[in-house]
Amino acid sequence: MERSFTSHRALRRWSLPLWSAGRVSVENEGFTPHDIPMTLIGAGLLWFGWYGFNAGSALAADGLAANAFIATTLAAAAAGLSWVGMAWMRSGKPSVLGTGVGAVAGLVAITPAAGFVSAMWSIVIGLVAGVICFLAAEFLRSARQVDDALDVFAVHGVGGIWGALATGIFADAALNGIGSDGLIHGNADQLLKQVVAVGATILYVAVVSFILLKLVDALFGLRAPEDAEVAGLDLSLHGESAYQM
Amino acid sequence: MERSFTSHRALRRWSLPLWSAGRVSVENEGFTPHDIPMTLIGAGLLWFGWYGFNAGSALAADGLAANAFIATTLAAAAAGLSWVGMAWMRSGKPSVLGTGVGAVAGLVAITPAAGFVSAMWSIVIGLVAGVICFLAAEFLRSARQVDDALDVFAVHGVGGIWGALATGIFADAALNGIGSDGLIHGNADQLLKQVVAVGATILYVAVVSFILLKLVDALFGLRAPEDAEVAGLDLSLHGESAYQM
Amino acid sequence: MERSFTSHRALRRWSLPLWSAGRVSVENEGFTPHDIPMTLIGAGLLWFGWYGFNAGSALAADGLAANAFIATTLAAAAAGLSWVGMAWMRSGKPSVLGTGVGAVAGLVAITPAAGFVSAMWSIVIGLVAGVICFLAAEFLRSARQVDDALDVFAVHGVGGIWGALATGIFADAALNGIGSDGLIHGNADQLLKQVVAVGATILYVAVVSFILLKLVDALFGLRAPEDAEVAGLDLSLHGESAYQM
Repeated sequence: MERSFTSHRALRRWSLPLWSAGRVSVENEGFTPHDIPMTLIGAGLLWFGWYGFNAGSALAADGLAANAFIATTLAAAAAGLSWVGMAWMRSGKPSVLGTGVGAVAGLVAITPAAGFVSAMWSIVIGLVAGVICFLAAEFLRSARQVDDALDVFAVHGVGGIWGALATGIFADAALNGIGSDGLIHGNADQLLKQVVAVGATILYVAVVSFILLKLVDALFGLRAPEDAEVAGLDLSLHGESAYQM
Repeated sequence: MERSFTSHRALRRWSLPLWSAGRVSVENEGFTPHDIPMTLIGAGLLWFGWYGFNAGSALAADGLAANAFIATTLAAAAAGLSWVGMAWMRSGKPSVLGTGVGAVAGLVAITPAAGFVSAMWSIVIGLVAGVICFLAAEFLRSARQVDDALDVFAVHGVGGIWGALATGIFADAALNGIGSDGLIHGNADQLLKQVVAVGATILYVAVVSFILLKLVDALFGLRAPEDAEVAGLDLSLHGESAYQM
Repeated sequence: MERSFTSHRALRRWSLPLWSAGRVSVENEGFTPHDIPMTLIGAGLLWFGWYGFNAGSALAADGLAANAFIATTLAAAAAGLSWVGMAWMRSGKPSVLGTGVGAVAGLVAITPAAGFVSAMWSIVIGLVAGVICFLAAEFLRSARQVDDALDVFAVHGVGGIWGALATGIFADAALNGIGSDGLIHGNADQLLKQVVAVGATILYVAVVSFILLKLVDALFGLRAPEDAEVAGLDLSLHGESAYQM
C-alpha cells in the first residue's frame, strides 16, 4: 500500500485543480494492492457491514429490511461479476481483485435503491454498476491527471450517481409505503426528481469541497512535501512501517 | 496458498478417477498454509458466520435459536480441542492450525443437529467430530491418491455424515416441536432414517458429481495444464500474484 | 509477533515476582507488532464483537441496548483519539497503532458504564481512558520489570479500574431502572461502593492469581526454557511458524 502510494505520488505531481485536460501516459494501470488477500478481507468486511447500513435503514426486522438485505446481496454479487467480466475482456484474465472492487461498486449503487426496488431489478442495477464503474475507472486512470489511487470517484462517485438515478427508474411504490413508483412503473416524474437531486448534490459537493480544500491548503497545505512522499507517508507522517519482519 | 497448491499439484499428477487404490508415499503431510494468522482469521469469520446459518435457521430470535447458537459454539470448541488433542498425540505438539481446522469440523457436524439436540450432547458431537475428521484427514493424506489439499472431504464430508447420524442418535423431541426423538431417547427408527438419508445423499452426490465432472472435463478439461500448475494458478489463470512487496 | 516476542523475552530475563522495584533501561519502547494491518483488523473485530458484549447485556433490542451501543462507540472513538494525541505529543507523530490500542482501552473502560451513563459522559470516560491508559503503559514499560508485551495491565487493568470508578461518577438512574445515580447526580455513595468493589476485586484477583501462578509454576513451570524462548514459542512449543513464504 504504502509503497505503491508513494511511487504513485512521486511520479505524478501537480496541485489543484484536481481535474485538468492533460493526459498522463505513464503507468496508469500499474498500481495493484500489495496484499490482495487483505484487500479481499476488507471488501468482505465492508460487504458484511453494509447490511447494517441498507437493511438496518428499515429501523425494524421486517419484510422491508429483508428486501433491502436481498437487494444488497444481489447487486453486490452482480456488480462483482460484471466488473470482472469487463476486466476479463480487457486483460484476458478474470481477477479476484476485480470481483472485490466490483462488489463494492454494487454496494454503493444499490444503497439509495435497496428499500425501494424489487430483488430482480437490484440484479440489473448491480450489473450496470459493475460495467459503468469499470469504464469510469479505466477512463479516469488513462485520460485525466487525477490522483485517485483507490478509484474512489469511479466506484463511489459514479456508482452513487447511477444508484440515485436507478432508484428513479426502478422504484416500486408497492414495496414501500413511503416510496413512489419510478420510470418503469409509469412515473417519469420520480426520475426527474432524482436527476435534480443528483445535480444539486454534485453542485453542493463541488462548491463546498473546493472551499474546504482551499482552506486546508491555506492552513496546512494539501500535498505532502516531496521527500515525505518518496519516503512514504506511513514513515514520514506517522513514524510507522506496516511490517516489521 | 498458491505456492503449496502449485507444488502439491505438480508433484502428484493423475486424472480421474479421483479415487484409486494406490498409495502415495511422498510428502503427504507437508502442506501447511503459507500464512497461519490469515487461516485463523478465515476460521474465525467462518465460525461467526455459521451462527447465522444454524441459529438463523430457527427463523426467529427465540429459545430454539439460542439452543442452536449454544450447541454450535460448544461443538466447534469441543472439536477444536479433540482435533488438536489428536494432532498433539501424533506430532508431540499442539498446533493452532489444528484448533482452527477442528473447529470447522465441529461446525459441520453440529449443523444438522443444532436445532434438535441439547447443549450437553453437542459437546459429544463436537468431540467425536474432531477425532474422526482428524483420522479421516490422516488416512486420506496417506493412503489414497486424493487431490484434496484443503481436507475438504475429511472435514465436510466425514463431518457432515457424522453430524447427520448424530442427529438420529441424540435428537430430543422435547427441544423442538417439529423434531423427533433419537436413539438415546428410545427411537432407533430415527437413526435408521438418518442412515438411509446419508446413503441416499452419498449416492445422489456421487452420481451427479461424476456426470458433472465428466461434462466439465469434456468441455473445459478438469486439470490445469502442467505449465500453468507449475507457474501457479493465480498467475496463469488470473494474472494475479497475492503479494506485491 | 513471534520474533519480537522472542527477542523481548530473550533480552530481559527474570522470574517471579512479576513486579520488582528495579528499572530496566533497555529498549523498553521498541516492540511494535510485526504486522500493523493485522493488528488493526484484530482491533476492528474486537470493537465489533464488543457490541455484543455491551449492547447485548440489555438482553433485549430496546432503548437501553441502543444507549449502550452508542456509549460503546463514542468511548472507543474518544479513547482512540486521546491515546493517539498523547502519543503524538510524546513522539511528534500520530500512529495508527495508537488509535487501535486506545480504542480497546476505551472499550474496556466503557464496559461497566455502558448501560448506566449517557452518551455525552461516555465521551469523557473514553477521553480519560485514552490518557491514563497511555500513561500507565508508558510507566510500566519504563519503570518496572514487567513482562507485559501486550500492555494488558495498562489497557485492561487500568482501563477497567477507571471504568468501574467512572460508573460511580457518571451513572444516571433515569437511564436504567436497575441503576443508581452517581457522584455527579448527587450520590457520592455509589462512587464509594465502586471504590470498595474495585478494591475487593484487586485483592481477590491478586491473591487467587498468586496461588494459581505458584501452582502452575510447581506443576509445569511459569517460564519457557531459554532455548525455547530464543527459538520462539511458536516453533518450540507448537511446532508451527506463522508464515511459509
